[in-house]
Amino acid sequence: MVLPLPVVTRPREPDEVPVDPLLEVHQRRRGRRPGDAYVRIVRPFEDTFRRGTDGGLIATERTLLDRQGWKRALRGFRTWLIGRPISSELETHERLTKVKALAVFSSDNISSSAYATEEMMRILVLAGIGSLALTLPLAIVISLVLAIVALSYRQTIKAYPHGASAYLVASDNFGARVGLVAAAALLIDYVLTVAVSVSAGVAAITSIVPALYPERVLVAVLIVASLMIGNLRGIREAGTIFMAPTYVYIVTVGGLIAFGLLRSITGEGLGAFEAPRTWLEAEEVGAAGALGIFLVLRAFSSGAVALTGVEAISDGVPAFRRPEWRNARTTLTAAAVIFATLFLGISWLAASIEVVPDPTEQQTVLSLIARHLTGEGPYLILLQVATAAILTVAANTSFADFPRLSYFLARDSFMPRQFAFRGERLAFTTGIIALSAMAALLLVAFGASVSALIPLYTLGVFLAFTLSQAGMVRRWWGRREPGWRRGVAINGLGAATTAVIALIVIESKFVTGAWMVVIAIPVLVAILLAIRGHYRDLDAALALERIEPEAEVAARPIVIVPIARLDRPSRRAIAFARSIDSEAVAVHITNEPADAAAMRDRWPSWAGSTELVIVESPYRALIGPLLAYMNALQLQAPERPILVVIPEFVPRHWWEQLLHNHTALRLKLRLYARRNTIVADVPYHTER
Amino acid sequence: MVLPLPVVTRPREPDEVPVDPLLEVHQRRRGRRPGDAYVRIVRPFEDTFRRGTDGGLIATERTLLDRQGWKRALRGFRTWLIGRPISSELETHERLTKVKALAVFSSDNISSSAYATEEMMRILVLAGIGSLALTLPLAIVISLVLAIVALSYRQTIKAYPHGASAYLVASDNFGARVGLVAAAALLIDYVLTVAVSVSAGVAAITSIVPALYPERVLVAVLIVASLMIGNLRGIREAGTIFMAPTYVYIVTVGGLIAFGLLRSITGEGLGAFEAPRTWLEAEEVGAAGALGIFLVLRAFSSGAVALTGVEAISDGVPAFRRPEWRNARTTLTAAAVIFATLFLGISWLAASIEVVPDPTEQQTVLSLIARHLTGEGPYLILLQVATAAILTVAANTSFADFPRLSYFLARDSFMPRQFAFRGERLAFTTGIIALSAMAALLLVAFGASVSALIPLYTLGVFLAFTLSQAGMVRRWWGRREPGWRRGVAINGLGAATTAVIALIVIESKFVTGAWMVVIAIPVLVAILLAIRGHYRDLDAALALERIEPEAEVAARPIVIVPIARLDRPSRRAIAFARSIDSEAVAVHITNEPADAAAMRDRWPSWAGSTELVIVESPYRALIGPLLAYMNALQLQAPERPILVVIPEFVPRHWWEQLLHNHTALRLKLRLYARRNTIVADVPYHTER
Repeated sequence: MVLPLPVVTRPREPDEVPVDPLLEVHQRRRGRRPGDAYVRIVRPFEDTFRRGTDGGLIATERTLLDRQGWKRALRGFRTWLIGRPISSELETHERLTKVKALAVFSSDNISSSAYATEEMMRILVLAGIGSLALTLPLAIVISLVLAIVALSYRQTIKAYPHGASAYLVASDNFGARVGLVAAAALLIDYVLTVAVSVSAGVAAITSIVPALYPERVLVAVLIVASLMIGNLRGIREAGTIFMAPTYVYIVTVGGLIAFGLLRSITGEGLGAFEAPRTWLEAEEVGAAGALGIFLVLRAFSSGAVALTGVEAISDGVPAFRRPEWRNARTTLTAAAVIFATLFLGISWLAASIEVVPDPTEQQTVLSLIARHLTGEGPYLILLQVATAAILTVAANTSFADFPRLSYFLARDSFMPRQFAFRGERLAFTTGIIALSAMAALLLVAFGASVSALIPLYTLGVFLAFTLSQAGMVRRWWGRREPGWRRGVAINGLGAATTAVIALIVIESKFVTGAWMVVIAIPVLVAILLAIRGHYRDLDAALALERIEPEAEVAARPIVIVPIARLDRPSRRAIAFARSIDSEAVAVHITNEPADAAAMRDRWPSWAGSTELVIVESPYRALIGPLLAYMNALQLQAPERPILVVIPEFVPRHWWEQLLHNHTALRLKLRLYARRNTIVADVPYHTER
Repeated sequence: MVLPLPVVTRPREPDEVPVDPLLEVHQRRRGRRPGDAYVRIVRPFEDTFRRGTDGGLIATERTLLDRQGWKRALRGFRTWLIGRPISSELETHERLTKVKALAVFSSDNISSSAYATEEMMRILVLAGIGSLALTLPLAIVISLVLAIVALSYRQTIKAYPHGASAYLVASDNFGARVGLVAAAALLIDYVLTVAVSVSAGVAAITSIVPALYPERVLVAVLIVASLMIGNLRGIREAGTIFMAPTYVYIVTVGGLIAFGLLRSITGEGLGAFEAPRTWLEAEEVGAAGALGIFLVLRAFSSGAVALTGVEAISDGVPAFRRPEWRNARTTLTAAAVIFATLFLGISWLAASIEVVPDPTEQQTVLSLIARHLTGEGPYLILLQVATAAILTVAANTSFADFPRLSYFLARDSFMPRQFAFRGERLAFTTGIIALSAMAALLLVAFGASVSALIPLYTLGVFLAFTLSQAGMVRRWWGRREPGWRRGVAINGLGAATTAVIALIVIESKFVTGAWMVVIAIPVLVAILLAIRGHYRDLDAALALERIEPEAEVAARPIVIVPIARLDRPSRRAIAFARSIDSEAVAVHITNEPADAAAMRDRWPSWAGSTELVIVESPYRALIGPLLAYMNALQLQAPERPILVVIPEFVPRHWWEQLLHNHTALRLKLRLYARRNTIVADVPYHTER
């Protein structure tokens, strides 16, 4: 007898004595000697459940443990890799100080300074080494754009203190479809942030350890794998570990710039960079054309990568201490100022010493500058390590952003529900794995080259910027709150600027890679919409809005048991079928009429009153005749479901499965598609 | 109501009125107007079943037809490819005349003449072109060996008129284990017969169409695929189509030899073969050492491939007209005489005109001889086409032998049961596909080169010969029938000869390939024994030898329904569960206590008196807590099976499956391994 279960929805009878299965179950048993009677005490829930405050059952960690051999080992490995499961109750929402938040959220933006200058120069050099003189002017223009965007985002942050993701802002102001365009752009952007940051980080390392250069793709993929495991463990926005790389990088690069300024002011001079002969030859060979407006625009859009990461701060507003929006704004301004200083400083140094980028991408421009100014010493190593570290931290921000955006989208039914599910460590497992897989794929496909990835990168970022700021304009316009004219002006200027840059990116980078993003965004939006369509249709089809208690009373099923031979599994299946319905019928499909006759003769002594139907199958097929037989039964009672009870033998070893006909599996697949059909598997475990 | 089913094993009550569902089912229905009543006549079995002579049901071909879109298309393609299903009743056992049987069974042996001479020469030439003079003497020795083996097999055929396969003869006289060694050798032999014959056939074609030479592996695999499809269609021993290639080959090669003899006798002379310069250089470079005894033995064991195919006639004894053994013996003798004539003739021609084998294997020796004697004309083309055709027919004999031996082994439980199952066209589908796959693999691995495959080929053949003839010696010895002394002498000589050759093959071909067979045979035997062990254990565990009617009466199952949310599929599953057991319990595992509380509030109005158990899962796992809960229930009633009723939603399109959590599938896999657990799937098909 099943004892009353802990959470019972029907009213409890006044005289009912509750037995708490969490504590113990008393079973009266007869003893060994006649007349004996004793009570056996069973604790069914032992340590697998505890009782919640409302009296319900709460599963303990023990329910996750597998007891079997290799599964247990697998669980052990998993625990070693990502740690023990964390209970939902332990979720904490740490609020960040401005100093920590700067480190966490603006690492993405600040770290761009490690490669933005270089990427501009790589384009300019295509028109000859003389064109590199344009580096500093372009850097100044880009810094101005950054100032505009930062000003504009300060307003967005204030307006959306609960999270100013472009997806949310665009959805709120332009509806779901425009929001989805922003979401698609952001998803692509996050994947590329990982790929680009990790590639740039690997470049920082190969600059000082050239031996790793041939293995750069492998190193990059291993870094992504480490980030994935770390995030599956649930590190997320643990500010403290991320503070070090960001501030060390700021101080180290700042120091390099200060040193250069000092030498420059004291009149000591910076000296001229001497590029290896092979580089110059390579650049000469590569110098295809004159410095036209097209090339300048390409260089500008490469440098515009400097603006990536501004989004990260606005995404993270809710994680700031109160007042969130004010602290976030201050941090944004500080980040923009720091970034601009480093970016302009590096560009100025590069221009002053007339550095030439390494055509093989083995050494970064930043490392060339540092090597030129400070030589092969500890400072160079410190700088490169700090660069690699901040770039890894920057990649890590996407590991917070991508799964979070996926969660929002899954919650709104635009992405599969798996993305909304928190794993054993409270991390969004599916999102983290999807991000890692796509980033690794990009790294392999593009050989972990920053220059090859850049054309894909910037378009998504600027599209999201534009939609977000345009949304702000619309919001100001609609609400006409105090100061709305100024708001429209600032956000409008920002939106216009970023829209122009997005067009420049499409124009100048289309052939080299932006076309992929131009195709990917609408495709992604179509997929997101199709997924929501599916979920909506499904809800409409499955949901039970009206309450019709007991409306669906099932008709008594027709029970059939297909049997292959007279053996224990068949007998058990028949016994089960009869326990449900005494009219259950056994069906034997045969291609050997002689065997069937023998079976029919033995049947009455074997299965008593159960009926046996023998169907000869002269074409030796099993499933077709069985389905045809079921159809014939169904015609006689169209309203009754058919319950097919399938005897199944469970071998002890997986390889033994290979020796069996898998007829049961094939049959189940066919029955799954048949309407009004219930399949009951009665497994038989051999007791050896 | 389900009507009485056609084959009923319980005694029919005297007053029971049988209703034959094959004819019609009468259902009383109410009409549209009140008071109306009419009888609806349903013919449930329509054209899917007919009635057998004993009153049982016999499925018609219609039961095999799929009605759904793409499955129907698949079935159409399959019918186009291998034909419509054939009923078991239509199986015929055609008996073959000697003339047909010679064509069918000895094509394997006779076709060896197309490459046996060449393979000897390819080894001899390794000691320089002068060594080719040994070709004819070696051919004479091999012909003598063939005479001994043929004499010996004449006795075997008489002793085993129902099939003289080495597996049967060895099992009969030395027990199952030795029989299995022979079986393993034969299985390997059959696969190699296909690979070698097809490779030689392709070589015959590339000799006249050099353009096909670079694609020889592809051509070979396509020939195997055609043979596979043909045999799946069930061509088997359809003598007539096979007569043409065999006799055309015999006449064409015979004519070539006769032409040579005539020119030789008339003193016209045969002329000397002029090998291209590059060939001679290649052979010189390749000529590594002197002509030692080892090389002669290698050449001999390559030429011994001439004896393959003798087995085929002894396998096919039951297919001859009565008296089977006498006709089979006569055919064997005729085949041996024909083969020896062709083999010696070709070897004599090759020696006389001093032909040199083409080191690239682009042209066969036979084609070089014909080209030398008859020029580039229709005769050459006829000869090459006939050669390719007889080799294809020879490969085809393995398509009868391999599946048949597999069937014997499967019947004796040494191979998976699938090998004993006849497909829709009465062919042994699994055996045919397995043979084709392995032959194609060998062709790809060895580049469709006869010379590369030969070292693997002969060992299996001679091992089977030796075991079969040794079995005959033992049989004679044991029975002491009249003439047993002569019998022992002949079979003993045969066994000794083939044993020596097997040792020579191992000795001389070990490094070049025989080692693979030396490893493969014991491994295969071990696998065959392991399979029988498994089936035996299983039968012991599952079979119900003693008749205990109604012994296994199932305890009433504990019924639980895991539900994820309140929707139609859940409701249907609960309705089904309640139709089985009114105490069925719904279980909801939740990681959102708030949602669970809402569900609990709505529950009574939704599912009436069914109990709902809510289990909180703070680690967000679903399956672990459910299993733990089931264990707790089980402890309270260890003897009752647990029936888990799983609501499942069946999407309309396969891709929609990707959007669902697959929790049901994972749960089922886990429950499959749990003892005393029955899983009932209640699928819900959306009605859109």
